[in-house]
Amino acid sequence: MRVHVPLYLRWADLDAYGHVNNSVMLRLLEEARIRLMWLPAGGHPADKTRIFDAEAGADSLTVVAQQHIEYKNVLPYLETPLDINVWVGRLGGSSVDIYYEVYGTPETPEQSVLYARAMSTLVVIDAATQKPRRLRENERDALQSLREEPIAIGRSR
Amino acid sequence: MRVHVPLYLRWADLDAYGHVNNSVMLRLLEEARIRLMWLPAGGHPADKTRIFDAEAGADSLTVVAQQHIEYKNVLPYLETPLDINVWVGRLGGSSVDIYYEVYGTPETPEQSVLYARAMSTLVVIDAATQKPRRLRENERDALQSLREEPIAIGRSR
Amino acid sequence: MRVHVPLYLRWADLDAYGHVNNSVMLRLLEEARIRLMWLPAGGHPADKTRIFDAEAGADSLTVVAQQHIEYKNVLPYLETPLDINVWVGRLGGSSVDIYYEVYGTPETPEQSVLYARAMSTLVVIDAATQKPRRLRENERDALQSLREEPIAIGRSR
Amino acid sequence: MRVHVPLYLRWADLDAYGHVNNSVMLRLLEEARIRLMWLPAGGHPADKTRIFDAEAGADSLTVVAQQHIEYKNVLPYLETPLDINVWVGRLGGSSVDIYYEVYGTPETPEQSVLYARAMSTLVVIDAATQKPRRLRENERDALQSLREEPIAIGRSR
Repeated sequence: MRVHVPLYLRWADLDAYGHVNNSVMLRLLEEARIRLMWLPAGGHPADKTRIFDAEAGADSLTVVAQQHIEYKNVLPYLETPLDINVWVGRLGGSSVDIYYEVYGTPETPEQSVLYARAMSTLVVIDAATQKPRRLRENERDALQSLREEPIAIGRSR
Repeated sequence: MRVHVPLYLRWADLDAYGHVNNSVMLRLLEEARIRLMWLPAGGHPADKTRIFDAEAGADSLTVVAQQHIEYKNVLPYLETPLDINVWVGRLGGSSVDIYYEVYGTPETPEQSVLYARAMSTLVVIDAATQKPRRLRENERDALQSLREEPIAIGRSR
Repeated sequence: MRVHVPLYLRWADLDAYGHVNNSVMLRLLEEARIRLMWLPAGGHPADKTRIFDAEAGADSLTVVAQQHIEYKNVLPYLETPLDINVWVGRLGGSSVDIYYEVYGTPETPEQSVLYARAMSTLVVIDAATQKPRRLRENERDALQSLREEPIAIGRSR
Repeated sequence: MRVHVPLYLRWADLDAYGHVNNSVMLRLLEEARIRLMWLPAGGHPADKTRIFDAEAGADSLTVVAQQHIEYKNVLPYLETPLDINVWVGRLGGSSVDIYYEVYGTPETPEQSVLYARAMSTLVVIDAATQKPRRLRENERDALQSLREEPIAIGRSR
C-alpha cells in the first residue's frame, strides 16, 4: 500500500555542487505527504487519501516532531518526475510515522536508482489549545489503509 | 568543545503556518557547519576550525550521507540570531558525525528554549574519483579538537 | 508563438501570509525558461525549443541582467499546475528578453486569473572568458521562432 | 537617508552556477525591508524605522505589486555581510516605492562592488476587506523620514 507521488524537480533545487541540496530533499518529502494527506483549500473530498483538513481556519494542524533521512545517491536535475513512495509505518495516539523512498521515474534509465529513504513523525495539534490531540476515527481509518512495514533509516546509533 | 555559531533567520524561512519550515532547519544546520568546517574561497587559514577546502576546483567535496533531527519547539521568526551549537560526535575512516543543538539567543527571554537537536553524517569524497577518501591527518586532528559526546536523536526505531 | 509551460507549485512556496512568496515567483519563471531554452545533461536535441547547452563543462552560461515583474493577483497554493506563457520579446547581440505571463490552469475556475507578468533579460557568457559573447546563428534562429510582441511591465518610471 | 541593513548570505543561496541565484536576491531585499519597516511579534516600538505592524492578527498587511531589479555583478558566497542600502523613493496614497542598492561589506576588498539595484512597490492592504487602504499619518511621517531620490532600474522599455 505505498502511494506513488510524482514530483518534478526545479533547477533551483541544485546547490553549488550541482546536486539537489540535502535540505531540499525534505521539502520534496513534505510536498509528497501534503499531496497524499491533506485536504487543501478547495480540496477534493472524493480523493480517499486526503486525510487532514488544512484549510485556513481549520481546527487542527500537523507539526513534524522528528525526521530521519538516508541519502543513497547524489540526485542531479532530472527532466522526468521523481517517483516518491509514501506509506504509513506506525500509528500512535496523536502521531503518525510516514515513510518514504525516493526513486527516479521508472520509465527511464534512472529506473533502478534509489535516491533517498526517510521517515517523518507528524503530530496532530489542536489549533485552539496548541496541544496534541488524539487521531479521530476517520483519520485513523484512512491512515490505516496506507499501512506497510516501517524500514530502518540510517545505522543504529 | 561545542562551537557556537550565531545565525540570523529570514522572514522567508517561515511557511504558511508562520513557523520556520522543517526543511529550512536543515538549511540552517548546513550553514552552521559550513561556517565551522570549510575553507571557502578567499578563506581564513588562520581560523583553526576551518577544516575542509571548498574552493571551486578543490580536490575533495563532502556529501551528506544521513541526517536525523528532532524538533523540540516551534520556531517563530526571531530578530536575534539563533545560537547553534555544533560539535563532532564520532570520527570514521572517511566520515564524520556532526551534532547540533539549536537555541535562541542566550541574552533574550528565549534563553532556555531548545528548538532542535540533530546529527549529520558527512562523507569526504575525492573529486577526481567521486569515491570516499580517508580523512587526512590534519583534518582528523582538527576534527578531533571539536569532539564531544554524541547525543541520541529521536526515539529508538 | 507563446510556449505554455505547466508548473506545479509546492506548499513550501507559501510564506507566512499564506501566499506564494514574491521571490518564489522568479524561481518559477526561471524554471519555465529552463524547460524552454536549455539542453540539460542528457538533453533532448529533438526538442526544438531547447536552445542553450547547459551541460557541466559547456562553453557558455547565461546570466540574468535585469528582471521586471508585476504581481496581478495573490497566488495561493493550487493543486493544478500553473500555465506559464513564455516568449521572446527582443533579441540583442548577446542578449535576449524573455517575457512571461503566469496563469492558473485553463481547465479550472482559475482559468481567467492572471497572477503575474514579467520580463527577464538574459546575457550569454563565454565560460572561458567570462565575458558576453554574440548569439550564434542557430541560437538566434531558434529564439527568433519564439518571437512575439513585448509587453510593458509596471508603470513607467 | 539611506538605511544600511547588514545581511549574511547562506551557502545554500548559491545555485548550480556557484552564484547567488537571481530569485534569492529578491529574498534578501525582502529581508532588508522587513528589518527596516515592520513591527514584528514582540516588536521594538522604540526603533523609529519600524513602521508597519506585522503581528499575526494585525489589521493590515503589505503586498508587493511590482519589482524591478538590475544585477550588476555576479554575487559569490561571501563570509562578510552584504551592505544593503534601503530608502523610500516615492509615497503614493496607499503604496510606497522602496529602493535598494546591494553592496559588499565596506571594510573588505569587495568595498566598491555594487551587486544589484532594485525597486519594490508595496501596497498596504486592509486585512478585513483585503483591499488597499490609505497610508496612515504616522506611517506616512515615518516613511517620509526615509525619503531619498529614486533611481532608474534597467533600461527604458
